[in-house]
Amino acid sequence: MSLAAQVLDGNRLALARLLTQIENNTEAGREAINELFAYTGRAHLIGVTGAPGTGKSSLVNQLARYYRDPAQGATTHTVGIVAVDPSSPFSGGAILGDRVRMRDLAGDPGVFIRSMASRGSLGGLATTTATVVQALDAAGFEVILIETVGAGQAEVDIARLAHTTLVIEAPGLGDDIQAIKAGILEIADILVINKADRPGVEITERALRGNLDLAHPNRRLMTEFTESGHHGAPVRKEQPDNNAGYGLMWSPPILRTVATEGIGIADLGSEIERHRQYLVKTGEYKRREQTRLASELELMLQASLVRRWRSTIPDDLYQQVLEQLVDRSLSPWQAVQVLLAGDLSI
Amino acid sequence: MSLAAQVLDGNRLALARLLTQIENNTEAGREAINELFAYTGRAHLIGVTGAPGTGKSSLVNQLARYYRDPAQGATTHTVGIVAVDPSSPFSGGAILGDRVRMRDLAGDPGVFIRSMASRGSLGGLATTTATVVQALDAAGFEVILIETVGAGQAEVDIARLAHTTLVIEAPGLGDDIQAIKAGILEIADILVINKADRPGVEITERALRGNLDLAHPNRRLMTEFTESGHHGAPVRKEQPDNNAGYGLMWSPPILRTVATEGIGIADLGSEIERHRQYLVKTGEYKRREQTRLASELELMLQASLVRRWRSTIPDDLYQQVLEQLVDRSLSPWQAVQVLLAGDLSI
Repeated sequence: MSLAAQVLDGNRLALARLLTQIENNTEAGREAINELFAYTGRAHLIGVTGAPGTGKSSLVNQLARYYRDPAQGATTHTVGIVAVDPSSPFSGGAILGDRVRMRDLAGDPGVFIRSMASRGSLGGLATTTATVVQALDAAGFEVILIETVGAGQAEVDIARLAHTTLVIEAPGLGDDIQAIKAGILEIADILVINKADRPGVEITERALRGNLDLAHPNRRLMTEFTESGHHGAPVRKEQPDNNAGYGLMWSPPILRTVATEGIGIADLGSEIERHRQYLVKTGEYKRREQTRLASELELMLQASLVRRWRSTIPDDLYQQVLEQLVDRSLSPWQAVQVLLAGDLSI
Repeated sequence: MSLAAQVLDGNRLALARLLTQIENNTEAGREAINELFAYTGRAHLIGVTGAPGTGKSSLVNQLARYYRDPAQGATTHTVGIVAVDPSSPFSGGAILGDRVRMRDLAGDPGVFIRSMASRGSLGGLATTTATVVQALDAAGFEVILIETVGAGQAEVDIARLAHTTLVIEAPGLGDDIQAIKAGILEIADILVINKADRPGVEITERALRGNLDLAHPNRRLMTEFTESGHHGAPVRKEQPDNNAGYGLMWSPPILRTVATEGIGIADLGSEIERHRQYLVKTGEYKRREQTRLASELELMLQASLVRRWRSTIPDDLYQQVLEQLVDRSLSPWQAVQVLLAGDLSI
């Protein structure tokens, strides 16, 4: 039985082996994915991102538990968790959070957890993560939570990878955190203020709402309709105008949670489901998938082109050009020109 | 007079225009840099990085003021500041911090400040930042402070760009911040605990030291020699064994600052100078420059290869392959193969 067939058969050990093959970018891994790819496209991919200190790992934990055992007659789902740590280029920092998670969800055959570090490969992490997610998707996991730590390009890459992106905040994380929000907010489908029992939650929510209005101008109008009548509840959910249906754009709601105590998780789960339905009804679900596959193809092509080109030029030309660059007798642009022409005499 | 000649002549307006050309990746910008590149390599490039909330911008401000007006007879330097915000892919979030800075340093002709946002270009930010830094270098700025916010690949790219990398921490930034340190610490030449007047500074320093010992194993031995006699000072500087000379590796010191009050800045300035001297004496200065130029060349080549290849294949082939990918009749790997062969029938 091929590795791919074993994975389709529900063999967890085979799945773990496949993910290692994917991370090491082996021929066997590529062959298995070629075989498995036809079985992908069924999972709901949920990105979870936010600055360090917001309690993302706890929240992802709680979401996994929610999908395994949802309230009031909702359907149970199998869950894959991919925890990506792009800030850990050299060592496996993600393993720490992983162990905490394990204690909670270990032994449940409906949950599969994988941690990944970036290993310093520029762009490579996004490709590898996408392939790992495909493997979990083909293996039949219905909800896949993709978690990253940090605030940067990795978040944008996640937004491209996921159907639904959660951006997690927490009260009192410092002053200049305000400055980074505008960019991150633009990739948010749902905003979560975790640790909402901490002081400063009102300030955080006000700042978020202000920045959100900047990032999603259409949102302002909708919240004006629904601003009243929600105050005072310990965990408050902001309801965008549901009567507006799925006509216009999605207006990212702001939710409060206290993940360590499970508060607000069921509301978050409903909101994620509401977003999925919005995506499906508007055709956005399909569109996001296309964008995602296109950008994945782009990254893989790029890497392949460089590999192919590298094999065609003599090693000593590259070395000579580099020396002239260091000597300042060629500028970087000129060096590129020479290398592409394959000839130092131009 | 060419744009490049005007920049060499000290024309600030021309420099600002050039930086815009570089950011927009224009032909005029490339030509000017080709001309200016021979004048680069004189500035000391200092990277400043760390999580949001650590007060990086204030610290960079204070460092700039220090170089403009150093204590006790040290030499005055002209200063360029490049503030990069990789977490702001869509909008110019960096502008906020910039305005604060402006109030402080405006009107000093020996200071030039430039803010940059990533605009969502993968890899492109590192290349553009490198070129902007080259322009400031050629324009004669002696110290160039390159500041990024966030914790991820951008930090690693900065480490490649700078001669000296400062990693900024602050007390009490949350729990899972510990997890990200190991990776970031490996790029640190100097560690700064800013906001050192806050509670929890001892805990932060202990955590940093522990992680530092993991990241730089040779360091443990050296601190054991010098651990005693430094306790209790409000702003403490850890002195690695100076008598050891420049024989072995650099051991990253941990410094405390309160940037908003200017505390610890002069000590930090001396430590940066000590690092520069270490780099020069060991030949590491030259080596870092070579590594930096090599990785810059790499990124530019990659982008050029993709552009060149794109121009050789028919548009409709790309579209057809993409459709088959979305239909799951080709896997991503198979799609790349087809595109590289330029033929759907393989």
